[in-house]
Amino acid sequence: MNIGVLGTGIVGQTIGSKLVQLGHHVMMGSRDAANPKAIRWAKAEGPRASFGTFANAASFGEIIFNCTLGSVSLDALRQAGAANMKGKVLIDTSNPLDYSTDAWSLTVSNTDSLGEQIQREFPNTLVVKSLNTMNCNIMVDPRKLSEKTDVFVSGNDVEAKATVVMILRDWFGWRSVIDLGDITTSRGVEMFVLLWHNLRNVVSSPRFNIRIVS
Amino acid sequence: MNIGVLGTGIVGQTIGSKLVQLGHHVMMGSRDAANPKAIRWAKAEGPRASFGTFANAASFGEIIFNCTLGSVSLDALRQAGAANMKGKVLIDTSNPLDYSTDAWSLTVSNTDSLGEQIQREFPNTLVVKSLNTMNCNIMVDPRKLSEKTDVFVSGNDVEAKATVVMILRDWFGWRSVIDLGDITTSRGVEMFVLLWHNLRNVVSSPRFNIRIVS
Repeated sequence: MNIGVLGTGIVGQTIGSKLVQLGHHVMMGSRDAANPKAIRWAKAEGPRASFGTFANAASFGEIIFNCTLGSVSLDALRQAGAANMKGKVLIDTSNPLDYSTDAWSLTVSNTDSLGEQIQREFPNTLVVKSLNTMNCNIMVDPRKLSEKTDVFVSGNDVEAKATVVMILRDWFGWRSVIDLGDITTSRGVEMFVLLWHNLRNVVSSPRFNIRIVS
Repeated sequence: MNIGVLGTGIVGQTIGSKLVQLGHHVMMGSRDAANPKAIRWAKAEGPRASFGTFANAASFGEIIFNCTLGSVSLDALRQAGAANMKGKVLIDTSNPLDYSTDAWSLTVSNTDSLGEQIQREFPNTLVVKSLNTMNCNIMVDPRKLSEKTDVFVSGNDVEAKATVVMILRDWFGWRSVIDLGDITTSRGVEMFVLLWHNLRNVVSSPRFNIRIVS
């Protein structure tokens, strides 16, 4: 499958590399057509990996991953272009984090979320919030952890969520995927990131995740 | 030990009853000296249970539990009185929830928290945020769940947190207590309650909790 990955940071690189390893063709998109990190990544990953602008990657992908920083995601998606994302599944892995102080805070929360903002701005794109509640190494390889843990999906379109559940299970190896409901449930998973950050300091490693026990 | 429990709702009743069963003397405090729910609770629990105003209960307790609704906690604690809580451990189990719409939201979040507000307003009280991330039945009996799960403590005073850890482990049966850090880490655990609410709808029961897996 052709997949667009927006963002050249560690999340985009990790997800992009996993997808290439699975046999997919991946274009990494960034603000500039020739981002040095994207060029290096594509060279390292071989012939199935390519790079371009956000618009190039969005147009290329049958499915699109938003792996940009949450604070700039809306701007990046505007550059990607509504027409290039029309009717497509957009997997939004971002968190609307303000990293400017030691105490992380969110740029949108509580009565709204980045997931909802993206869905409102791009009503013809099938936005599914997922994978934003753990480190990227766990996102694509949950078996690194000692036990089964949980990943969440939030979105308005049932078929789009089914596609994402398939990707999470069959491609990334998740054994437990919890459908939280519509895109408004992005609020809870985005707001979880502050507890995640506290736990990251306690665990002294980003390699952890939560498991729901009943 | 003499313990003050502020709040006559299900959380206050559940914690109060557990403490009485453990052999402690518990006074349940409320806005009115003769709250019908507090009277019924004390009658049902027998001679070690009593009731009174918030101020009566705070004065009575060597340790105090705040089990009032988060939206009215500051007002309840003002009625309890700074002098009656001076130098004492206050275990804050509340969440600053606005229940007025189906989509829960918080009255304070992101860059502040109820735990911090309480600590700022009562600087001579040793505030420890804890137990606000699960249903009250789990709070006092975590072995109801099929596996070991986690409970958190947040607070500025190390000895006060050690007291709360003892209560959680030896009295309530928690096997894993995670010290998240100072009282600012209340933000994360309070903001988690939106994800908790989404999970409660998915699980179709409030009897669940999270476990950190690394």
